[in-house]
Amino acid sequence: MKKVAIVMGSDSDWKVVEPARDTLNRFGIECSVRILSAHRTPQAAAAFAQSARENGFGAIICAAGKAAHLAGAMAANTTLPVIGIPIKSSTLDGLDALLSTVQMPSGMPVATVAIDGAVNAALLAIQILAVSDAALEEKFADFRKEQTQNVLKKDEAFQTRL
Amino acid sequence: MKKVAIVMGSDSDWKVVEPARDTLNRFGIECSVRILSAHRTPQAAAAFAQSARENGFGAIICAAGKAAHLAGAMAANTTLPVIGIPIKSSTLDGLDALLSTVQMPSGMPVATVAIDGAVNAALLAIQILAVSDAALEEKFADFRKEQTQNVLKKDEAFQTRL
Amino acid sequence: MKKVAIVMGSDSDWKVVEPARDTLNRFGIECSVRILSAHRTPQAAAAFAQSARENGFGAIICAAGKAAHLAGAMAANTTLPVIGIPIKSSTLDGLDALLSTVQMPSGMPVATVAIDGAVNAALLAIQILAVSDAALEEKFADFRKEQTQNVLKKDEAFQTRL
Amino acid sequence: MKKVAIVMGSDSDWKVVEPARDTLNRFGIECSVRILSAHRTPQAAAAFAQSARENGFGAIICAAGKAAHLAGAMAANTTLPVIGIPIKSSTLDGLDALLSTVQMPSGMPVATVAIDGAVNAALLAIQILAVSDAALEEKFADFRKEQTQNVLKKDEAFQTRL
Amino acid sequence: MKKVAIVMGSDSDWKVVEPARDTLNRFGIECSVRILSAHRTPQAAAAFAQSARENGFGAIICAAGKAAHLAGAMAANTTLPVIGIPIKSSTLDGLDALLSTVQMPSGMPVATVAIDGAVNAALLAIQILAVSDAALEEKFADFRKEQTQNVLKKDEAFQTRL
Amino acid sequence: MKKVAIVMGSDSDWKVVEPARDTLNRFGIECSVRILSAHRTPQAAAAFAQSARENGFGAIICAAGKAAHLAGAMAANTTLPVIGIPIKSSTLDGLDALLSTVQMPSGMPVATVAIDGAVNAALLAIQILAVSDAALEEKFADFRKEQTQNVLKKDEAFQTRL
Amino acid sequence: MKKVAIVMGSDSDWKVVEPARDTLNRFGIECSVRILSAHRTPQAAAAFAQSARENGFGAIICAAGKAAHLAGAMAANTTLPVIGIPIKSSTLDGLDALLSTVQMPSGMPVATVAIDGAVNAALLAIQILAVSDAALEEKFADFRKEQTQNVLKKDEAFQTRL
Amino acid sequence: MKKVAIVMGSDSDWKVVEPARDTLNRFGIECSVRILSAHRTPQAAAAFAQSARENGFGAIICAAGKAAHLAGAMAANTTLPVIGIPIKSSTLDGLDALLSTVQMPSGMPVATVAIDGAVNAALLAIQILAVSDAALEEKFADFRKEQTQNVLKKDEAFQTRL
Repeated sequence: MKKVAIVMGSDSDWKVVEPARDTLNRFGIECSVRILSAHRTPQAAAAFAQSARENGFGAIICAAGKAAHLAGAMAANTTLPVIGIPIKSSTLDGLDALLSTVQMPSGMPVATVAIDGAVNAALLAIQILAVSDAALEEKFADFRKEQTQNVLKKDEAFQTRL
Repeated sequence: MKKVAIVMGSDSDWKVVEPARDTLNRFGIECSVRILSAHRTPQAAAAFAQSARENGFGAIICAAGKAAHLAGAMAANTTLPVIGIPIKSSTLDGLDALLSTVQMPSGMPVATVAIDGAVNAALLAIQILAVSDAALEEKFADFRKEQTQNVLKKDEAFQTRL
Repeated sequence: MKKVAIVMGSDSDWKVVEPARDTLNRFGIECSVRILSAHRTPQAAAAFAQSARENGFGAIICAAGKAAHLAGAMAANTTLPVIGIPIKSSTLDGLDALLSTVQMPSGMPVATVAIDGAVNAALLAIQILAVSDAALEEKFADFRKEQTQNVLKKDEAFQTRL
Repeated sequence: MKKVAIVMGSDSDWKVVEPARDTLNRFGIECSVRILSAHRTPQAAAAFAQSARENGFGAIICAAGKAAHLAGAMAANTTLPVIGIPIKSSTLDGLDALLSTVQMPSGMPVATVAIDGAVNAALLAIQILAVSDAALEEKFADFRKEQTQNVLKKDEAFQTRL
Repeated sequence: MKKVAIVMGSDSDWKVVEPARDTLNRFGIECSVRILSAHRTPQAAAAFAQSARENGFGAIICAAGKAAHLAGAMAANTTLPVIGIPIKSSTLDGLDALLSTVQMPSGMPVATVAIDGAVNAALLAIQILAVSDAALEEKFADFRKEQTQNVLKKDEAFQTRL
Repeated sequence: MKKVAIVMGSDSDWKVVEPARDTLNRFGIECSVRILSAHRTPQAAAAFAQSARENGFGAIICAAGKAAHLAGAMAANTTLPVIGIPIKSSTLDGLDALLSTVQMPSGMPVATVAIDGAVNAALLAIQILAVSDAALEEKFADFRKEQTQNVLKKDEAFQTRL
Repeated sequence: MKKVAIVMGSDSDWKVVEPARDTLNRFGIECSVRILSAHRTPQAAAAFAQSARENGFGAIICAAGKAAHLAGAMAANTTLPVIGIPIKSSTLDGLDALLSTVQMPSGMPVATVAIDGAVNAALLAIQILAVSDAALEEKFADFRKEQTQNVLKKDEAFQTRL
Repeated sequence: MKKVAIVMGSDSDWKVVEPARDTLNRFGIECSVRILSAHRTPQAAAAFAQSARENGFGAIICAAGKAAHLAGAMAANTTLPVIGIPIKSSTLDGLDALLSTVQMPSGMPVATVAIDGAVNAALLAIQILAVSDAALEEKFADFRKEQTQNVLKKDEAFQTRL
C-alpha cells in the first residue's frame, strides 16, 4: 500500500498535526513525518516532492501557518494530490493560512481542509488511497459506521443524563 | 477508468462549473454532471452519493454557493473523496461558500479548492485517480510540463513585446 | 402545547446550549435535547426532522459550529420553523458557523440567532409558539416586562453605587 | 388567518423586498407593506410594532441595510416573532447589515435570514403561521414538493442538454 | 457648563466604560451614568434622549456590544451629538458592534470611536463642549501638551534603559 | 457662527464628499473645502489644523481612503473635534479606510461616520455647532421633523401604489 | 546603477503592474519584466532569484494574486530585498493576495505594499537603491517635492472652482 | 555602515519589538530605539524622520497598533525606506494595524511585514543595507544558510524522536 507523507513547516506545528499521524496509523498506513519549509529549505522541500511518487507515497499532507506556501510549493513539484492543513497562528485566527492554502491559482490545486483540521487531512488521504483499494475502503466504511454509532450512543446516553 | 461526478446545487452555477467538465474531457475522463441540492432534493442527493462508488465513480466534485452544504452532504453519504468548489454569489464574494465548504467538522473532510476554482477541482480529481493509474499520471505530468512551457513562452514573448 | 426540539451536533456544545433548555423549562415548554449530526448521522437527523411535526414539536432549535450544516439539513426535512444557533469553535470566532447557518439559499430558510445565542433561540421558539397561544403570549409579555424592570432596577442601583 | 407585515427602512429597498410580498401572496396570506425607519420615524415604528398583534399580524418581516436596527427596534416593541432581512448596500457587501441584525443581545432575538433573502423571510413567516394552521402547512408541504420536483426536472433536462 | 451623559446597555460594560467617566471628571465635567437598553428599555431610553438637551446635557456617550443599537436609538431621539463606543463581546472581537454603531444610514450620524475606546469617547465629548467654551479648550490644550510631554519623557527614559 | 472645514486627501474624493458641502450650505454654515494630504502635504495639513480654531472653524471634516490617516493627522494638530469620513476605494470596500479612521489610539479621538457618509459628517458637524447655538439647533430639529415627515409621506404614498 | 526586476505570475497582471515599470523608467532605472510562476515554473522562478544579485539587480518586485506565493518563493532564493504587490483578483477583493504576501513566517520577509500598489512598489525599490546613491536620492526628493506641489496646486485650483 | 532606527508608538510595544533590535545587533548594525507617536508627538516624529538620513540612518522601522499611522507619518517626512510592523492590540487581531500600515495611497509606500513581525522587519532592513554592502550581504547569506541548516537538523532530529 502507498505511504502518506506529512510535512510541516515547523516542529511547533506538531501538537496540531500529530492526530493526522495517529489517524493514518489507526488505518495501518505507513507515514513519514517531515519538517520542511517552503521558505527556509526550498530545495529540500522541492526535492522531497519531486521524488515522493517514486518513493512510494500516494498523497502528501502539508501543514503550515500564516502565509502558508508549503502545500502550494509541494504541489508545484509533484503530480500527487497534495492536502493542505492551514494552521492557526498567533494572529488572524488562521484566516491567513486558510486563504494562502486554498486560493491556489488555476492549474495547481491544493485539497484544503479546515483550519487545524489534521484528522480530516488524514481521512482525506485515506479516502484518496481507498479509491483503488477495496480493503482500505472497507476499513474506512467501518470507521464511518463506528463514528455514526458513537454519535448515536452519545445521543442515547444524553437522554438518560438529562 | 473510474468516472468523476460533477454535482451542482443549481443550473445557474454551470457557467462557473463548465471548465471542470472540459478539463476532465481533455483527459478522457468520463463524467456525469448532475443538478442536486442538499436542501431542495436531500433524498436524491444522498441516494446519488450512496451509490456513486458502485456506479463507477472515483471522485465527486460539488459546486455550491452561499451556505454551501452540498459537498458536506455528499461526503456524509459516500466513502469517495469529495471535492468542494465554493461558488461566489451576489454577496460576501464567496467567503460564505468557502467557509461552509472547508470548515468541515472532524471526521468528515471535503477537499476544498479556491472560490470558483472549477479547473482546479477537475485537476484534483485527476490527480486522485492518477494515484493508482500510471497512464493517467503520465498524461497529467505532460499537462503540467505543457503548462510550464506555456508560461515560459509567454515570458519569452513578453520580452519582445516590451 | 407543542414541544420544542433542541438538536446539537456534538455533546461538547451542551455548555453553550443548556440555557436554551433552561429558558424553555422556565416557560413550561416540554423539550427534547438530541445529539444528531448532519454529517455523522445524516439518516438519523433526517428521520428526526421528518417526524418532528407529527411527534408534537412546534419548532426545532439546531446548534452547530464550523461548517454548521445541521440547521439546514433539518430544515430540508421538515416544514417546521428551524432556528439555528451558530456555535463559536476554536477558530474564526464563530463567523464560519454564522455564515453556514444564515446564508441559506432561496427556498430553505433557517431562522438564525446570534453566535452562541442559546437563550435567544429559545425565546424565538417561544414567540413562534405564542403566535397562536394567548396564554403563552401573556407569559412571554410578562417575562419581557420583568426583563425591562430588571434593567431599570440595575440603572437605579447603579446611581446609588456611583 | 393572521397577516404578515413587511416593513422596510427605505422605499429603495423595495426591489429586493418585493419577492417577499409575492411569496406571501402566492400562499394567500394577507400582508401590509410599510416604510418605517428605526431612526427617522422611531415613534411610528414603535407604534406599529406595539399594535401589530392586536391588528391581526402573526409575524413582522423587517428589511434594512447598513447599521440595520429596524428589526431589533420592532422586536423591542412586540411579542410577535420578528424576521430580519439584512440588505446589501453600497459598501461591505451586506456584512454590516447582517451583523447588525443577527447579533442581537440576549433577551431580544431577531430571526435572521440571508443577506437580501426576501423569499426566505416570507417562507419563514409562512412556516411560523403554519405551526398552528394545518391547511397552510399542507400548502407549504406542497410547495416544497414542487420545489423538489423543479430541481429534479432541471437535472433531467440538463442531462439531455449536455 | 453642560453635562455629559454616559449610557451603557448593560452594567457588565462598566469596567470598559469607567475610564470615560474618570476622564470627564478629570476635566471637571459633570456626568450622569445610566444603564438603558435600546431593546429592553426602549421607552426609557427614548425618554432620556428626548429630554437630554433640556436637562443640561451637551453630548451623550453610548456604549454597547454586539448588534449595538443603543447609540443609534439615542440619536434618533435627540438633536445632541451622540458618541458611540462599540464594545467587544465574546465573539467577533467587536467588529459587530463597530459596524452596528458606525454604519448609520444617511440622516442620522453617530460619532463613533474605536472599539472599547472609552477614554476617546470622553475626550471627544470634551472637544465638542470646548468648541464654545474657551476655558475648557485651554484645559484640553494643556492636557494634550501633557500627553505629548509624557511620550517625550518615556522616550527619554527609554534611551537610558536600553 | 463658526465655520466648518472639509478636507479631502484627493480631488477624486469630491464626488463622494460634495453632499457634505451641500448639507452645510443648506443650514447656512460657511465652509472651506481643502485638498490636503497627510502624506503628500504633511506640513500644509498640520498648519491648516493648527490654525483652524483661530481661523473661525468649529469642526473639521476629513475624508480619505485606504490607509486613511488624514483625520488622525489633523486631530493631532488641533483641539477642535475632527470628523472622519472613510472613503471606499478600489479594493476592500472601504474597510481599510474605516479601520484606519476609527481605531485611533487612546488620547486622540476621531469622530467617525459611515463609509462614504458625507451627509452624516455634515450633520454631525451641525449638531456639534448646535450644542451652543439655539437657533441652529432649532433649524436642525426642523430638518429632523421634515426628514420624519418625508418617510411618513413615502409610507403613505407606498400604500396607494401597491 | 543596479537594475530592478519586475516579476509577475501571469501576463494578465500587466495592466496593473505596468505603472511600476513606468515609474522606474521615469527615474532612469533599468528594469526587466518577467513572467514567472511560483507554481507553474518553480525552477525558472528559483533560478531567476538565485542569480538576480550577480545579474545586477538591486531589488525584485513580485506581483501575484490569490494565494500569492511568488514574492515569498523569490525571497527564499535571494538575499535581495523582495517587494510584494498583492493583486486583486475576481473574488475576495485582494485580501487573499495581501495575507499570502505579507504574513510571511519569521526569517523570510517580503516588503509588502498596498493591493494593486504598483507605483508604490517601484517607489520603494527606488528608495532602497537610493540609500547608497546620493544622486538617485536627490532625484527622489525632487519627485516628492513635485508631488507635494501637485497637491497644493490642485488645492488652489479647487478653491477657484468652487 | 548606516544605522537603523526603530520607532514605536508606545513603550508597551517593546516586548513585541525587542527581537528587531536583537536581530540588528546580531548583525552588528547600530540602531536607535525611539518612542514617538504620530498623534501625540507629531512634531517630534516629523523632525526625527526629516533628519534621519543626515543622521546616518539607512532605514526606519516603525511599529504601531490600531489605526497605525506612525510608519506613514514617518515616510511622509523622509526619503529613506520605511518598514512598518503592524502591532496586534486588544481587538481585531492586528487587522486594523495591518490595513492602516500597508494600504498606503499611491506616492508614499511603507514596506509592510507581518503582524508583530519584528524579526522580519529587522531582516528586511538588513537586506536593504546589504544591497550596497557586500560584507553585510555575505553575513546575511550565512545567516540564511544557518537558518536552512537549523530546519534540516530539526527535521533529522524529528525522525529519531518519532
